[in-house]
Amino acid sequence: MKPETSSLPLVLRVPVTAEPPSLQDNTADLDRLRAAVARTLPQALNGRTLHIPFPAMAGLGRDFRQAGFCGQALLNVLPHQLDIVDFTKETGPITGVALDLGTTHLEATLVDLAGDDILAHTHGPNRQMEYGADILSRIHFATAKNTDLDGLQQLQEAVVQSINPLILELADSAGVAPETIRAMSVSGNTTMVHLLLGLSPYHICREPYTPLVNSPDPFPAAEIGLQINPLAPVWVLPSIGSYFGGDLISGILASGLDQLEKTSMLIDVGTNAEVVLGSRDWLIACAGAAGPALEGGVARMGMRAGPGAIERVRLDRENWQLDIKTIDDVPAVGICGSGLIDLVAELYLAQIVDLRGKLCRDTGFGSAKRQEFVRRHLVDSGDGLVFILVPAEESGNGRPVVLAQVDLDAMMRSKAAMYAILTTLTSQVGVEFADLDRIYVAGAFGKHIDPAQAITLGMLPDLPLSTYEPVGNSSLRGAELILLSEKARIRSQEIGRKITYIELNVNQEFMIRFSGSRFIPHTDPKLFPSVPVFRSNSPPGKA
Amino acid sequence: MKPETSSLPLVLRVPVTAEPPSLQDNTADLDRLRAAVARTLPQALNGRTLHIPFPAMAGLGRDFRQAGFCGQALLNVLPHQLDIVDFTKETGPITGVALDLGTTHLEATLVDLAGDDILAHTHGPNRQMEYGADILSRIHFATAKNTDLDGLQQLQEAVVQSINPLILELADSAGVAPETIRAMSVSGNTTMVHLLLGLSPYHICREPYTPLVNSPDPFPAAEIGLQINPLAPVWVLPSIGSYFGGDLISGILASGLDQLEKTSMLIDVGTNAEVVLGSRDWLIACAGAAGPALEGGVARMGMRAGPGAIERVRLDRENWQLDIKTIDDVPAVGICGSGLIDLVAELYLAQIVDLRGKLCRDTGFGSAKRQEFVRRHLVDSGDGLVFILVPAEESGNGRPVVLAQVDLDAMMRSKAAMYAILTTLTSQVGVEFADLDRIYVAGAFGKHIDPAQAITLGMLPDLPLSTYEPVGNSSLRGAELILLSEKARIRSQEIGRKITYIELNVNQEFMIRFSGSRFIPHTDPKLFPSVPVFRSNSPPGKA
Repeated sequence: MKPETSSLPLVLRVPVTAEPPSLQDNTADLDRLRAAVARTLPQALNGRTLHIPFPAMAGLGRDFRQAGFCGQALLNVLPHQLDIVDFTKETGPITGVALDLGTTHLEATLVDLAGDDILAHTHGPNRQMEYGADILSRIHFATAKNTDLDGLQQLQEAVVQSINPLILELADSAGVAPETIRAMSVSGNTTMVHLLLGLSPYHICREPYTPLVNSPDPFPAAEIGLQINPLAPVWVLPSIGSYFGGDLISGILASGLDQLEKTSMLIDVGTNAEVVLGSRDWLIACAGAAGPALEGGVARMGMRAGPGAIERVRLDRENWQLDIKTIDDVPAVGICGSGLIDLVAELYLAQIVDLRGKLCRDTGFGSAKRQEFVRRHLVDSGDGLVFILVPAEESGNGRPVVLAQVDLDAMMRSKAAMYAILTTLTSQVGVEFADLDRIYVAGAFGKHIDPAQAITLGMLPDLPLSTYEPVGNSSLRGAELILLSEKARIRSQEIGRKITYIELNVNQEFMIRFSGSRFIPHTDPKLFPSVPVFRSNSPPGKA
Repeated sequence: MKPETSSLPLVLRVPVTAEPPSLQDNTADLDRLRAAVARTLPQALNGRTLHIPFPAMAGLGRDFRQAGFCGQALLNVLPHQLDIVDFTKETGPITGVALDLGTTHLEATLVDLAGDDILAHTHGPNRQMEYGADILSRIHFATAKNTDLDGLQQLQEAVVQSINPLILELADSAGVAPETIRAMSVSGNTTMVHLLLGLSPYHICREPYTPLVNSPDPFPAAEIGLQINPLAPVWVLPSIGSYFGGDLISGILASGLDQLEKTSMLIDVGTNAEVVLGSRDWLIACAGAAGPALEGGVARMGMRAGPGAIERVRLDRENWQLDIKTIDDVPAVGICGSGLIDLVAELYLAQIVDLRGKLCRDTGFGSAKRQEFVRRHLVDSGDGLVFILVPAEESGNGRPVVLAQVDLDAMMRSKAAMYAILTTLTSQVGVEFADLDRIYVAGAFGKHIDPAQAITLGMLPDLPLSTYEPVGNSSLRGAELILLSEKARIRSQEIGRKITYIELNVNQEFMIRFSGSRFIPHTDPKLFPSVPVFRSNSPPGKA
C-alpha cells in the first residue's frame, strides 16, 4: 500500500527564460510570459490552456520584469487549464495544506509539493461544536428559519476560524509565511464540506438525501477567507452522496483500493461507519450510524483518542489483574473507541458481560481472585450496575472511569450495525468475507483497534488477523495525495463515477442483519469459530 | 459592410430540463444541473469544459431547486470553458454593455445578446481628464514616484467612476436592473486599458514601448468594481502594442477588413491616427500622432463633435457667403475636426490660406464681395491674423469662433502626418493608393468628414470619392460584435496574431514623407490632380 505520486502537484513550478523586450520584439510582458511558459511546459501539460487570473496580472507583470524575464513561474494545475499565478527568482519549497475536516476534529499537514515531504502536522477542534455536536444538529442550526443571524454563515465562519489557526501553526512550525502557502486540499464529510463552502445543507438529511453539490470545482482560497495565498486553489475531495463524503474517497485513494487486483475492503469509522468493497474493476459502498458509541459522543466516559484516553485494556484472567494503557501514558480521564472494544471483549471473555451484552449480576463463580475482582469492579451505582475501570483516586481528573449498562448498550448497537453493514455490503455482490484479500481499517479507530478484540465482539468478521491492515488517518493522507499528484486528483473523480452506493436507511436486509448481530459474537456463532461462546452465567469454557 | 454575428454571444441562455432528485437518482443538485446543461449544449460548445464559479454555487443551487429543476441556465461563453453563472425561469433579454473607452470620451451601448438589438446608447467624459489631458500625462501621473497617493489607483477609480454612471443610464433607459447586465466588452487604446485594469503603463511610452499586457483573459466585472452583475465577464479587446490598441482591432472587426478579398484600408483618427492596410490574407498597420489638432485638444476653438460644434463649412465663392452647420443646429461654440478640415479647405480654395498653410495677409484681389468678406473675417488680433468664423454676437457662448495661425499650424502638422502615415504604410508593401478597393474612415472624424475637402488639403489620397466609406464609431461597433458573436471574438485574437505593426517613431522614411506633406495639397502636386494649385497671392485659378 504505497500509493504512487505523479510529478504533477496541484501547484507546479516551471523554469522560464525569455528574451527581454526589444524594438524588434516588443510583445507585451504577460503575453511574453505566457509564450515562454508554454515553451517549457512538461509534456503532460501541453495543450492545456494557459490562463492568467485577473488578480495575478499586476504582480506577475512587475515580478517578471524585476526578475529580468528569467525565473520560475508558478502554475495552478487545474483539470482543464493552467493558471499562471506568480513569478519568482526563488526556488524554496512550494507548500500546500492538506486538511482532514472532521465534524468534531480537524487534522492538517503542511506538504512540500515539490519534494513530497510533510513539513509540519497539527490538529484542533472544529469550533462548530458549540453550535451542535453532530451533523444533524449543525444542519438544523444552518437552516433554521426565523433567526436574526444567518446560521449557515455562522457555521461557515466558525470552521474557517478553526482552520486559520491551524494554518498559522503549520506555517510557524515550518518557518514559512502563511501567504506563501500555495494550495489546499480538503477531505471531509458532505455536510462539513457544504458548511465550509457556505452552501445550504438543508436537503442532505431529507429524503431523497440530495447534497447541493458533490463535485465542486476548485476555487481560490480568498473566496472563503482562508489565510493562505489568496489565489491558492482549494481542492475539495468530491463526495458521492449525503452520507458518503470526500473523506472516504480520500480513504480509497490512500489505501489504493481502487487499484487493487484482488477484492478488498476499506472500513472507516468516524461519526459514521463507512465501508467500501471492491477492486480496480468495481467499487461498492455504504455507510451507516455505527460510530458514535466508539467516537466519544455517546458512551458516558467516551472520549476522542487523545491524552489520557484509555486506548488498550487487557484482563489477565489467571491473576485477575487489569492492564490499562492510556494515550501518552498519563492518568486516565476517559476511554476511546479502541479501549471500549478492548474492555467489552475482555469482560465478555471474563463472563462479566454476557452474550446479550449485559453486565452480569450473578457472577459468583470462579476463583477467589476472580470473585474479589468482580466485587471490587462491578458495583451497583443505585442507577444499575457499573464496571469501574479506573477508580476516582487513580484517574486524571478525580472521577472514576466507568462502563455503565447504557454505554454498553450503545456499544452493542454500534458493533451490531458495523457487522450488519459489512454483511449487507458483501451479500449485495455475492462476496464471502473469506474472499477478501485485505481489510483496511482507517481512522484513529483503525490505528488503535485490536482486530482480535473486535472479532471477539462480533464486530469484524472472523478472518486471519493478517487480513487486517490499519491505514491511519486515510482522510488526511488522501488529501495529501491530492496536493501531490494529478493522478490522485483524476482517480478521486473516477472513484466518484464508478462507485455504487447503497443507501442503508432504506435497506430492509440491513435491518434484519442488524437484529441478528446484537449478540456477542452473533446469533449464529458458526460465523465466529474462533470466539468462545458462553451460556449465560455458566463457568468459563466453550459452550 | 454588414458583419455577420454567429449565434454564440458572450453570455448564452440554454434551456434545461432535469428530473427532480429521487431515491433512485439522488445526484447532487449542481452535478445534476451540470449534466443537464451538458445534454442541451449547442453543437459548437460540445466538449468545452463546464465550470461553476465559486460565487455562483449557492445561488445556482437555490434557484435550480426553486425552479423545479427546469428553466434557463446562463453560461459565460469563455474561449475554453463555459461558466454556469445563473439559473432562472424567466426569458427576458440578456443584456451586455459595449464600451468605447476613449482617452477623453466614453461611448457605450446596451446590447440585447439574445436579440442582437441595441437597447440604449449613451456617452460621457473620461473623468481621468482632471489628472492629465493626454495619454502621456496620464502615464506620468500613474507612475510618478514619491506621491502619497497611488496615482494608478486614482486613475483606475476615476475611469470606473466614469463608466458606472453610464451603466446606470443605460439600464435606466432600457428599463433593466444594472445587476442583470451580464457582460461587458471594452474597446480602448492600450494605455486606457491598462489604467482600467489597474496595470502599470510605465513601459508603454518608453523604448521599446512594451505594454504589460496585450491580451488579458476575460475576468469577472466585480474585480474592477463595475456595477453590473458581479460575475459578468469583461472582455477587453486585445491590443497589438503600445500605440495600437483594441479600439483599432475593433475597427478592423467592424469594417470587416480582415475578411475582404481585395486590399482595402481603414483609417481611424482619434487621439492618434491609426491606419490598417490589408485583406483577408494579410494586415499591416501603423499609428502616429496625427489626431490631436482634429480632436479638440489643440486648436484653440477646437472641440469634440458635440452640440454647437461646427461640423461643416461651405464658402460660396460667387457671393462670398459662409454656410455653417453646427451639430444639433444650435448656435456655434467651437469647431470640431471635420469642420476644421472643411474650413481650411474652403479657405485654401478661396486663397485666404496659402499652400504653406498660412493665413494670407496680402489678399487685396478679387471681386468687391471677396474683398468685403476678407475685410470682415480676416482681422489682426494683435497676436497675428485670425479668421473669424462666427462673430461673438452670433455664437452660442458670447465668444467668437476663430481660426488662428497657431491652430492652422497644428492642423497642417496633423494633415501632413496623416498623409505621411498613409504613404509610408502603402510603400512598405508596394501597394498604390489606386489599388485600394475601399478606404473605411472610422470615428466621429470619419462620420462627419467630407473626403473631398480632406483631399483638397492633401490629407487623404486623391481617389474617387466612392472609395471612401464612413464606418462611424467602429471602436464601439467592434465591442458590440464581441458581445454578440464568438466568431468576432476569435477574429479579434486572430487579427492580433496576423497583423504586422510598423513603429513610426523609429521610421526614417516617415519623417521624409512628413516633410513633403506639409504643403497644400503636397510638394508634389501631381499626386493630387483634382486639386487646384495656387501660386502664393496670385488670383484664383489653376497654376
